[in-house]
Amino acid sequence: MSAVPELTLPVVLLSHRGPVSFVRDDDEVSATRGAGGLVTALTGLTAHLADAVWVCVASGGEDAEVARSAGGSPVRLALDPEPRLLDPDAEAGEDVTGRVLTMRLVEIPPEVHQPFYGVIANPLLWFIQHRLYGIGSHPTLGREERRAFEEGYVAANRMAADAVIEEVERRGGKAAVLLHDYHFYLVADLVRQACPDAMISHFVHIPWPGPDAWKILPPHMRDRILRGLLGADVVAFHTRTDARNFLLCVQELLGMPIDLAERSVTVGDRTVRARSYPISIDVETLKAVACAEEADQYLTALDAQVGDGMLVLRVDRTDPSKNIVRGFEAFGLLLDEHPEYAERVVFLALLQPSRQDVAEYADYLTEIGAAATRVNAAHGTATWQPVDLRLASDMSLAAAAYRRCDVLVVNAVADGMNLVAKEAVVINEHDMVLALSEAAGAHDELGRFALTLYPFDIAQQADALHEALSMPVELRHDRLAHAAEIVRRNDVARWLRIQLRELASLTPDEASDEAGDDVPIG
Amino acid sequence: MSAVPELTLPVVLLSHRGPVSFVRDDDEVSATRGAGGLVTALTGLTAHLADAVWVCVASGGEDAEVARSAGGSPVRLALDPEPRLLDPDAEAGEDVTGRVLTMRLVEIPPEVHQPFYGVIANPLLWFIQHRLYGIGSHPTLGREERRAFEEGYVAANRMAADAVIEEVERRGGKAAVLLHDYHFYLVADLVRQACPDAMISHFVHIPWPGPDAWKILPPHMRDRILRGLLGADVVAFHTRTDARNFLLCVQELLGMPIDLAERSVTVGDRTVRARSYPISIDVETLKAVACAEEADQYLTALDAQVGDGMLVLRVDRTDPSKNIVRGFEAFGLLLDEHPEYAERVVFLALLQPSRQDVAEYADYLTEIGAAATRVNAAHGTATWQPVDLRLASDMSLAAAAYRRCDVLVVNAVADGMNLVAKEAVVINEHDMVLALSEAAGAHDELGRFALTLYPFDIAQQADALHEALSMPVELRHDRLAHAAEIVRRNDVARWLRIQLRELASLTPDEASDEAGDDVPIG
Repeated sequence: MSAVPELTLPVVLLSHRGPVSFVRDDDEVSATRGAGGLVTALTGLTAHLADAVWVCVASGGEDAEVARSAGGSPVRLALDPEPRLLDPDAEAGEDVTGRVLTMRLVEIPPEVHQPFYGVIANPLLWFIQHRLYGIGSHPTLGREERRAFEEGYVAANRMAADAVIEEVERRGGKAAVLLHDYHFYLVADLVRQACPDAMISHFVHIPWPGPDAWKILPPHMRDRILRGLLGADVVAFHTRTDARNFLLCVQELLGMPIDLAERSVTVGDRTVRARSYPISIDVETLKAVACAEEADQYLTALDAQVGDGMLVLRVDRTDPSKNIVRGFEAFGLLLDEHPEYAERVVFLALLQPSRQDVAEYADYLTEIGAAATRVNAAHGTATWQPVDLRLASDMSLAAAAYRRCDVLVVNAVADGMNLVAKEAVVINEHDMVLALSEAAGAHDELGRFALTLYPFDIAQQADALHEALSMPVELRHDRLAHAAEIVRRNDVARWLRIQLRELASLTPDEASDEAGDDVPIG
Repeated sequence: MSAVPELTLPVVLLSHRGPVSFVRDDDEVSATRGAGGLVTALTGLTAHLADAVWVCVASGGEDAEVARSAGGSPVRLALDPEPRLLDPDAEAGEDVTGRVLTMRLVEIPPEVHQPFYGVIANPLLWFIQHRLYGIGSHPTLGREERRAFEEGYVAANRMAADAVIEEVERRGGKAAVLLHDYHFYLVADLVRQACPDAMISHFVHIPWPGPDAWKILPPHMRDRILRGLLGADVVAFHTRTDARNFLLCVQELLGMPIDLAERSVTVGDRTVRARSYPISIDVETLKAVACAEEADQYLTALDAQVGDGMLVLRVDRTDPSKNIVRGFEAFGLLLDEHPEYAERVVFLALLQPSRQDVAEYADYLTEIGAAATRVNAAHGTATWQPVDLRLASDMSLAAAAYRRCDVLVVNAVADGMNLVAKEAVVINEHDMVLALSEAAGAHDELGRFALTLYPFDIAQQADALHEALSMPVELRHDRLAHAAEIVRRNDVARWLRIQLRELASLTPDEASDEAGDDVPIG
């Protein structure tokens, strides 16, 4: 990852998942790197910043043990070549090469974490923000949900905020506080109250719908979520539409006057800004995976499977927002209407089963299997199964498939950004066509060089697949090159750089005219 | 109904349902009055206006026959004392006392009407606008829906527009064209193209959600709906939020610049205004029904049933948007937590089965019955069934229940206006408490004098029911009096008057400063 500029202010970062989690082998505690684009990006950030600390939730069993041993203090990690806990007693005496990161684990007791995470954050907030509820029958909120909010979400946010506040105070009360995602909407206001001199940003990584959708929550939940976020100096999203929707919520649900042209709202004597910074990927890290031997082996196998045929690919968690069933139905319609593709196209779906303890997710996985089977039953032959459904999570396989595929399908009904689209365009070697939902945040940047999918219309998606599979190679090549160039130029380091620059510009001592996204929303 | 001011311009009105429908008894064709608040209101309007014509769809079998006999010309109706068709050959020779109305029936062939009405208008547009879809799985749009839009919705709108255009041209090309509701979103633009001098308003009687919800439709549908409406001079809604959402859709989906402060959008050299005019009721007509002998008889029976207990009432179509199941669940929770109400409270639900040919509606009726039965099984005794579920539509019974009830429950998850709330407050005789959803349009006017319900939260609704049932009588009396006064002052005649005044003010010859709703949205 390229370097990010240093802030004069120390950084205190908060996210639910941390950079590593701990496991115990016999008597030894070892650390494993966290997965996911956000964690990779933030790891890069904090390791480059002096006096930074990453606050996160102790998730596994051994995390809690590490948190307890540290007695509420941060622990230090050496990241290279493999992450390991540094001995707190050795002070700076240990000889460490490579990146070192300071992490503080917040232990949230299971009786708080379960309602916080399992009732409120997932699924309630996730479903509301992806608009997955059919409101005629779901959700129904009762005493249990009220209790889960108070004793789970509010309590967990309080615990996380207390840890953040301690870390800010340890730094003299002045710090850049970078809060992340839908788990911690109440933290900014709590930190603001305790640390009035902190610069606070809260980044929301999932879609932010308009006021209608938020009205699923009663005021004692939705108003506190909004007021919690208004404790920040900057509330940040992936798209302009999300930022605009946030301001509309503040206007309609809290009755506060907003300024759509300035994308801000005045809260007492403070100005809170709603901004959009589209997240991206770490191109070098991805390329390293994609060119490693494991990926090469997968690629050889894929080449053998597809032969001189064509490969349509999707890579997703099995989340209803990802729209996997309609994707298979569109592919089935394509095969119905275009028999010329028989035996010539494979739709490889690399799907990671997700949240199977939630009924809607378990049902959705069943529907995915049924839809794939219907297509294969209608069109398959002894030598050709049109849908190749693989339930697993393997970055090397995904990278090999990115390199080989002819079409990448991203047809989500709602998606904060969708990094799969950005990953595939930078490493594909087959003049891949990107077929990209208008409802994915990535469409704002890549839509010009993609075939736009309208996620509810399977006829339109079937037509788009046909267009993709029959597009002249020069056009495919040209579009892919443009899309890849956009992603390479706007990588995750730049995403971080722009945010830090904007935060710095809000600090009186470090005033600057360089803003983040520079086109007004309104 | 009180008089409405005359426009200098003749009026051409369009709605799906008309003021009467025709049935044949032996050889004689007789007319029956259309039901519903809108039809009653519009009947009053057109009968008061000179040279007005009401264009509507020939719905029943005999309507089509009347349409055919008239050969595409309007027919004349005498409205009093009972509606009847006037003989076209008798010209003005027939001696008619009372109101006369001119109606033009548009015959839409079944192969057009079915996809228009049964696939697109209901359920697709209705579901989208009430946000009833759980978008992870519904709806899926394919070739059939595309065809239904083109060969149904577009074709039916074309037929209706042709009839409207003929009537405008018959009036020299200058007329006030009042278009109504979600069946005819494409008509304004068609009329605008043919009749550039017409003054056109389109009134949307159901909620207008934000751009997110409209993205369920692919651009070839949603863009045409928006562009169709932008053919009007005024696009009217029941609430400010609906009007604001319409402008946001124009901005986000069509990319046109909007003016939220002026609540308008510039289309070429025209200005299109988004306005809100909350519809109301005809108080005198309602009172006549409520005081008639049939209602008195129902009231006597209700009094006997409830005795000195308390009556909670709801009156609704069995539409998922009405939130009937969660209402019963909230009532069940109230009885769980407050055993003091045992044997003392009856929840009378007067429900009109609706759209039973649509699977979601048939399922919803089943769920309603199940929910009512669960409450009665948990709490009922030999002498007391807490939920009295009656599936019927009888205005006299509803009026008697309005007079008697102690609490009226309106807990809709989405509702354009909800006239039940307005009806009950003006004729109740029991210091009724209005328990009113924040999601009903009526909440904007009556919320101050109601207990607000948050429709997804059954715990909050149970608490509100308890508060309503235990509220001091003086407070109940005072709040009801205020709510009734608001409805009496803002009756349906005023609703019409304000709209006509605003339309007149847009006509250069009749310029006026009197605007409709006078508080800006933005």
